[in-house]
Amino acid sequence: MRLRLTPRDTSYFDLFAASAVHLVTGANLLAEMLGADRATRKELNKRMAEAEHAADDATHTIMRRLNQTFVTPFDRDDIYDLASSLDDCMDHMDEASDLMVLYKVDELPARVSDQVQVLQRAAELTAEAMPKLRSMESLQEYWVEINRLENQADKSHRKLIAQMFDEIADPIHLMKLKEIVEKLEDAADAFEKVANTVETIALKES
Amino acid sequence: MRLRLTPRDTSYFDLFAASAVHLVTGANLLAEMLGADRATRKELNKRMAEAEHAADDATHTIMRRLNQTFVTPFDRDDIYDLASSLDDCMDHMDEASDLMVLYKVDELPARVSDQVQVLQRAAELTAEAMPKLRSMESLQEYWVEINRLENQADKSHRKLIAQMFDEIADPIHLMKLKEIVEKLEDAADAFEKVANTVETIALKES
Amino acid sequence: MRLRLTPRDTSYFDLFAASAVHLVTGANLLAEMLGADRATRKELNKRMAEAEHAADDATHTIMRRLNQTFVTPFDRDDIYDLASSLDDCMDHMDEASDLMVLYKVDELPARVSDQVQVLQRAAELTAEAMPKLRSMESLQEYWVEINRLENQADKSHRKLIAQMFDEIADPIHLMKLKEIVEKLEDAADAFEKVANTVETIALKES
Repeated sequence: MRLRLTPRDTSYFDLFAASAVHLVTGANLLAEMLGADRATRKELNKRMAEAEHAADDATHTIMRRLNQTFVTPFDRDDIYDLASSLDDCMDHMDEASDLMVLYKVDELPARVSDQVQVLQRAAELTAEAMPKLRSMESLQEYWVEINRLENQADKSHRKLIAQMFDEIADPIHLMKLKEIVEKLEDAADAFEKVANTVETIALKES
Repeated sequence: MRLRLTPRDTSYFDLFAASAVHLVTGANLLAEMLGADRATRKELNKRMAEAEHAADDATHTIMRRLNQTFVTPFDRDDIYDLASSLDDCMDHMDEASDLMVLYKVDELPARVSDQVQVLQRAAELTAEAMPKLRSMESLQEYWVEINRLENQADKSHRKLIAQMFDEIADPIHLMKLKEIVEKLEDAADAFEKVANTVETIALKES
Repeated sequence: MRLRLTPRDTSYFDLFAASAVHLVTGANLLAEMLGADRATRKELNKRMAEAEHAADDATHTIMRRLNQTFVTPFDRDDIYDLASSLDDCMDHMDEASDLMVLYKVDELPARVSDQVQVLQRAAELTAEAMPKLRSMESLQEYWVEINRLENQADKSHRKLIAQMFDEIADPIHLMKLKEIVEKLEDAADAFEKVANTVETIALKES
C-alpha cells in the first residue's frame, strides 16, 4: 500500500464514469443500426458521431488534467491507459458504424447481432464499474465477466469469419463485411483492455 | 513549472528537426511518384528507402541518447513518443511507396493526390514546428492546423474509399488500391500523433 | 551504471526464459503444420493453443509480479515491454495457425516455409538470449542476428506478396493467403521488437 500525501483528486472518477456512459450509448446505437434501413442508419450514424465527439472531449479533459497536475489518484500511466482504452472502445464502434453506412451494406449476417450484444453488455458492465474505482471494491467480478464475454465473443467471431468465407461468393461484399465484423471485434478487444487496466490498478492498490 | 537541475541538452531539438526534414523529402517523393511511370516510380521508391534509412538513423540516435542520459529537456516518455511517431510517419509513407511499386498499380484515383498533398503540408508544418520546441513558442498554431488537416484528410479518405467500392469492379485491383490508400491515411494519422505529442509537451511545460 | 539497493529479483529471468521456450514450441508447430493434412493441422492447432495458453500464463505471472513489487532487476517499463512483445510473438503465431485451420487452406506458397524457418530461428535465438539477461553478457550477437533475420524476412515477405498478387487469380483465396502470410510477418516483427527491447535494456545497464 502506497502513502497518500494529499487527498485523492476525485474528478478523474467522474470523468471515467462519464466516458463509459457514452460507450453504452454507442453500443445501443449499433444494435439499433443492425435492423434499420439505409436512411435510418445514416441518422443513427450521425448520433454515433456525436457520442464519439462527447467521448473524445472526456478523454481530452482527462489527458489535459493529467498533464497539468502532479498528484493523481493512481498511477499516471494507468490513468493514461484507462482513458486511451475507453477511447478506443468508442472509436472502434464508431468506425464500424461508419463502415455500415459507407459500404451501403444492407443485410448483415445474423451472428453480427451476437457481436453487438456482447458490446452492449460490456459497455453496461464498464459503466457500472467506473464509479467503483473510487472505493476499489467489488471490481473483480467486472473484469472476470468481461474476460469471459471477450472469450465468448472471440469464438463467435471466428465462427462468423469461417461462415462468411464459406457462404459469401462475392469477394467485394466479403471484403466489406469482413472489415465491419473486424471493427466490432476490435471494439470487444478494447473493452477487454479496459478491464485489464482496471485489474492492474486494483492489484497495485491492494 | 518543473525545476531544471542542469542546462537543457539541446541536441534533441536538432535531432527532431533533422528527422522532420526527412519527412518533407518523403512526402515530396510520394507526390512525384503519383504522376510517374513504372520505371521512374522504382527510382523514386529507392530514394524513398534512402530517406527512410536516414530517418531511422535519426530515431536510433535519439533512442540511444535517451537510454544513456539522465537529464532530458522534457519528459523521457514524451521524447520517446515524439521520436516514435516521427518514425511512424516515415514508415507509413515508405510502405505506401513500396506498395505502389510492388503491386504494379499504374493509375491511382484522383483523390489520392489530395491525400498526398495533405502529407506534404503536414510534413512542412512539422519541420517548421520542431525547432520551436526549444523555446516552446507559437507551437499552438501548428497542432491546431495539423488537427484541421487530419480531419479534412479523414473525410476525403472516407469519400475515396466509398468511391473505390462503387467504381472498381475488379476485387484484386480494389484490394491493392485500398491498401495503398490506407497506408497514406496511416501516415496522416501519424502526423496527427506527432502534433498531439507536441501539444502534450507544451502543456506540461506551460 | 545504476546503484542496486537490493539483490536483484532473479525470478523475472526464469519467467522470460520460460516464456521464450513456448515460442520455440510454437514456431516448430507452425513448421509441422505446413506439410500436414487438414486433420493433422487441426490437431497441431490445438497444441498451438495450449502453447499460447502457457505463454499467456507466464506473461500474467510477470505482470502480476511487476504490479506488486517495488524493486525490479531493470526498468519496470522495459520488463513490461519485454513481456508484452514476447507475448505478441506467440499471439501472432497462434493467429496464423488458427487462420490456416479456419480458412481451410490446403496448400501454401513455397515461400511461406521460408517465413516459418525465420520464425523458428528467431525463437531459438530468443530462447538462448533470455537466460543471458542475468549477466547481460554476449547479448549483442543476438540482437544483431535477429535484426539481420528480420530484414531478410521482410524482403522475402515482399517478394511473396508480389508473387501472390501475380499468380493467384481467385480473390477470396488471395485474401485468405494474404492474411496468413501477414500474421507470420507480424510474428517476425514481434521477434524484432523483443530484440530491440533487449538492446534498450543492455544499453541502460552498460
